[in-house]
Amino acid sequence: MGNADFGYPSKAKGDSNGVQRVEVPPKQPFFKSLNNNLKETFFPDDPLRQFKNKPASKKFILGLQYFFPIFEWAPRYTFQFLKSDLISGITIASLAIPQGISYAKLANLPPIYGLYSSFIPPLVYAMMGSSKDLAVGTVAVASLLTASMLGSEVHATENPTLYLHLAFTATFFAGVFQASLGLLRLGFIVDFLSHATIVGFMGGAATVVCLQQLKGILGLEQFTHSTDIISVMRSVFSQTHQWRWESGVLGCCFLFFLLVTRYFSKRKPKFFWISAMAPLTTVILGSLLVYLTHAEKHGVQVIGDLKKGLNPPSITNLVFVSPYLMTAIKTGIITGVIAMAEGIAVGRSFAMFKNYNIDGNKEMIAFGMMNIVGSCTSCYLTTGPFSRSAVNFNAGCKTAVSNIVMALAVMMTLLFLTPFFYYTPLVVLSAIIMSAMLGLIDYEAAIHLFKVDKFDFIVCMGAYLGVVFADIEIGLIIAVTISLLRLLLFVARPRTVVLGNIPNSKIYRNIEHYPNANQVPGVLILEIDAPIYFANSSYLRERIIRWIDEEEDRLKSSGECSLQYVLLDMSTVGNIDTSGISMLDEVKKILDRRDLKLVLANPVAEVVKKLDKAKFIENLGQEWIHLTVGDAVAACNFMLHTCNKRSPAKEESEQWNNIV
Amino acid sequence: MGNADFGYPSKAKGDSNGVQRVEVPPKQPFFKSLNNNLKETFFPDDPLRQFKNKPASKKFILGLQYFFPIFEWAPRYTFQFLKSDLISGITIASLAIPQGISYAKLANLPPIYGLYSSFIPPLVYAMMGSSKDLAVGTVAVASLLTASMLGSEVHATENPTLYLHLAFTATFFAGVFQASLGLLRLGFIVDFLSHATIVGFMGGAATVVCLQQLKGILGLEQFTHSTDIISVMRSVFSQTHQWRWESGVLGCCFLFFLLVTRYFSKRKPKFFWISAMAPLTTVILGSLLVYLTHAEKHGVQVIGDLKKGLNPPSITNLVFVSPYLMTAIKTGIITGVIAMAEGIAVGRSFAMFKNYNIDGNKEMIAFGMMNIVGSCTSCYLTTGPFSRSAVNFNAGCKTAVSNIVMALAVMMTLLFLTPFFYYTPLVVLSAIIMSAMLGLIDYEAAIHLFKVDKFDFIVCMGAYLGVVFADIEIGLIIAVTISLLRLLLFVARPRTVVLGNIPNSKIYRNIEHYPNANQVPGVLILEIDAPIYFANSSYLRERIIRWIDEEEDRLKSSGECSLQYVLLDMSTVGNIDTSGISMLDEVKKILDRRDLKLVLANPVAEVVKKLDKAKFIENLGQEWIHLTVGDAVAACNFMLHTCNKRSPAKEESEQWNNIV
Repeated sequence: MGNADFGYPSKAKGDSNGVQRVEVPPKQPFFKSLNNNLKETFFPDDPLRQFKNKPASKKFILGLQYFFPIFEWAPRYTFQFLKSDLISGITIASLAIPQGISYAKLANLPPIYGLYSSFIPPLVYAMMGSSKDLAVGTVAVASLLTASMLGSEVHATENPTLYLHLAFTATFFAGVFQASLGLLRLGFIVDFLSHATIVGFMGGAATVVCLQQLKGILGLEQFTHSTDIISVMRSVFSQTHQWRWESGVLGCCFLFFLLVTRYFSKRKPKFFWISAMAPLTTVILGSLLVYLTHAEKHGVQVIGDLKKGLNPPSITNLVFVSPYLMTAIKTGIITGVIAMAEGIAVGRSFAMFKNYNIDGNKEMIAFGMMNIVGSCTSCYLTTGPFSRSAVNFNAGCKTAVSNIVMALAVMMTLLFLTPFFYYTPLVVLSAIIMSAMLGLIDYEAAIHLFKVDKFDFIVCMGAYLGVVFADIEIGLIIAVTISLLRLLLFVARPRTVVLGNIPNSKIYRNIEHYPNANQVPGVLILEIDAPIYFANSSYLRERIIRWIDEEEDRLKSSGECSLQYVLLDMSTVGNIDTSGISMLDEVKKILDRRDLKLVLANPVAEVVKKLDKAKFIENLGQEWIHLTVGDAVAACNFMLHTCNKRSPAKEESEQWNNIV
Repeated sequence: MGNADFGYPSKAKGDSNGVQRVEVPPKQPFFKSLNNNLKETFFPDDPLRQFKNKPASKKFILGLQYFFPIFEWAPRYTFQFLKSDLISGITIASLAIPQGISYAKLANLPPIYGLYSSFIPPLVYAMMGSSKDLAVGTVAVASLLTASMLGSEVHATENPTLYLHLAFTATFFAGVFQASLGLLRLGFIVDFLSHATIVGFMGGAATVVCLQQLKGILGLEQFTHSTDIISVMRSVFSQTHQWRWESGVLGCCFLFFLLVTRYFSKRKPKFFWISAMAPLTTVILGSLLVYLTHAEKHGVQVIGDLKKGLNPPSITNLVFVSPYLMTAIKTGIITGVIAMAEGIAVGRSFAMFKNYNIDGNKEMIAFGMMNIVGSCTSCYLTTGPFSRSAVNFNAGCKTAVSNIVMALAVMMTLLFLTPFFYYTPLVVLSAIIMSAMLGLIDYEAAIHLFKVDKFDFIVCMGAYLGVVFADIEIGLIIAVTISLLRLLLFVARPRTVVLGNIPNSKIYRNIEHYPNANQVPGVLILEIDAPIYFANSSYLRERIIRWIDEEEDRLKSSGECSLQYVLLDMSTVGNIDTSGISMLDEVKKILDRRDLKLVLANPVAEVVKKLDKAKFIENLGQEWIHLTVGDAVAACNFMLHTCNKRSPAKEESEQWNNIV
């Protein structure tokens, strides 16, 4: 079956039969299309859809339920759910208490603030959050970031009160920033932290946190305030005489125990509670050991006094005065974004398992409120950490009530159990942090990235190396910059491919992808794989001309028909701007001079509209724009001159070209 | 002719006849594809193509010709060309001398440096430049930028020597920056200044420059150093008692004369030389007038002494010491980019008229060398200004020899004619600048932008208003930021459209663009108009789910067949990253749970490769990926269940969804 039989009948048919032509899409009033665009940008989820055609009282209830999802699910809450939530709540509390204390140490804050932060924020989230599986608490990376960013301004041990107040202030700004992003529907900013960025960043942060724990494990008193691997290593090895073997042995034993339980629980998910209970177990064992052996007098540092009682108010402690305000705002925004990205990613992952939806903007409002309230009640930055949420999920939680149960358990601890932590050795906390962090170094994901997408792997390694060798912020900036460059590069250097006809069909595809596709004699078919914007219009002009030159060289050397048509398949050109239209104009002029004809196929609505307004369609001729590549080729073939090796007009124009 | 007859025969045929399937493209070794990508990014013009298979001596000559195009065209230079170049060279010299003096005043430099800058740089460009029409010289915008950026650090009248040396240093850095961009093949950075940005920026700069001329026209001695319209207006109207009417009248007359000649020449391009000679005529007339009336004693400021002689060397004047180095580098880079962008755009425009090519990277090297050499010979920043090049083109120049002629004419002026400029009134220079600037305010282009592309219009107005109301740099930053945001927004918020079948064809198109296209019962066909990257993967997941929800609502309310297939037309998805693949995975899982089937049509080579590596194809099933939407619909129809209003499985899954 030849091309003539099968490939191009529709043209002949079309003429008599009224084949579909490319049309200028129906005009829309400017404000309507502006409105549509704004809606798609900021309200892609159409949050007001459910409010349509409802009475005012119903609207109020729906609105309340939007901001406080608890009103939506509480009426349907059953005793069955409560049983599950109780179990999971107590399980996560047993993880939350040692983790809270450990991470507060990591943030250079007194340990008690870790417990405070596991009391109020979970209650707020239980009312406002839309995830059923997220367990709220402090996270290692944000804690470390707080320590390194605030620590560069105020020394945590020399001026502990100011440092503490700055931590509250940063938390306050983090909350304000999170909530406003949510309210302003700017949640998509989080999307710019790609999966690859997060893998690399988390791995790097985990490495850095582990390195910091060498202080606790080795029982060192002096330690560098930098987080990069070189400073830390220098700090560790410059004071080998200060290493305490008691501390080291204890730390390694506990770390080994924690890793073994985690490994075991991972192999048998039914025994998740073993790994969940392990931190509390190590805390109890460690404290007992110190109490019995009086190791605190032999170089094993202990937590010491923890003040009994619930969170004191801290609203008056927020610092809004000039020299520290900028530091607090900067710390708040950066830690807020990082924490939010983790929380939302975690929430989404578990929601996917259970097949329900998480609204990113709503979650941001919940996180924001939780941190604003937290900053007024002696809490520092909280979010939904992965480890705790995974335990919550595995323990079979049904709703956010598990957070309430955890908060109550922490409350009981604060009221009655704080004295029991007096003898808890710091080395146990270091071991807990290290074991949690080792799980975050996701080398398998990095290998996957390497296999599937080299560019993503570069982003990931950029983030990792930046964090480990320079600084947490620098790693993040490197990764985001590379990611954005990739987007820009996609537009700035679009792929152009030559299409050929797939035998026995009217289909035209990339001849490199489908080697059996044949180029059409006398017609060069090019596909441009990106919108034509200012950033690529010069490039595309050069590249199209080069394709034509190369094609002519090829045809000349093989003695085939000379080129007569250049067909641009515009189906993949999503949009065009005025620079792009000028480029097409120039290409048309250049082709005209070389006695070639420009033909377009299948421009999308947006492009047709603009080409029409810019009078390009008029200039090119409506008859040179076709709905499909097949139609366009048929039209070209219909008018193709008999195969002439070199047309005289072309010779002349080439001579002209060669004139100085 | 129904769908069943015409639309889907190829599937039936394909099964027996071996229809083309989507295949994983042939594997390329990693380094080969990396090499290809790097080549496309940095060497899109394949500059080494002509060096292939040539002997070493030929290669050397070609290399020399690459960097010094004069060796390419000089052997073919004829007496005929010389005649044309002589005429055009003298014409542009008559424009260059008054413009040079005026722009040097604009840059707060002694007027003689404007003449110096029209002597050496044109000679360098004549050897290295690849444009035949560009006339080299200083430009108003870059001069003003130099004044405002250096002026904020060093006062031009209080410390003139340091200021002058900084101007040379900035020129040096501009040259180094330009040349290194060219050598590093980073010319595409200039492409990020879109057409719209340049229109707005040039208009704004021209407005600002005109406003600055009020000082000269009104004969004011004190004037603000800010460039924004508010400061300038305040400065002008706060000293109305200082206005000099003699100066004002003279200025207005000359401005009127210049505008009339320009208007006349524009109407009759044959008389281009009237407008080209007009500036020199006004200078001569003005000087004569002052000389005869001794107006310099009645408040009309004159140029005064101009030192006779050629450019003194200035290489020892370059300042590389700390407090001013950063200012010089910053000024150099910004003015360098702006000047280069103008020069390349101008060169390209005229090259298009004469149908030859300008190599952006080569031009940058030429501009860079011209400024490096210039900075060592008492010249400040030069490029190819539009006005001068247009006159050159109209005067019929043939090669860069016209630049040499102009340089020689300027040399004669420097050697013998400087005393004649003693009585030239400053107000004439102001009038010359103003008349040149008014031509740069391209309101017609702005109207065109508004008509064709609203976003480009916003970019243009952002640049204009930023420059006029704030600062030249701020205007530029605003415009570039908005332009980049647009690129990011294109990727972050891609359009998704529903496709329908165009009657009596196998073609599927956007149902909003082609209202006669019909949706296929039971199949939702979506097209995604952008690459699937981290920046849009969350959005696309939400949006696809929302399309499905809306479609199901529509079908339910109209009582049609329920949805069974979701078909993604991937032809317009140019690339995908790991976040995008995870998104597809998630969408597949969600659809599986809702008892819907995901089908892909026509993924491009790059996407197929990555989906294959990530095992997504295996997971989805090779049989659910089709070469065309038509094939995919045919396959769906083949397997479509009988039209069932609600399948039981779906009821169940919805119930599950509703559980808390």
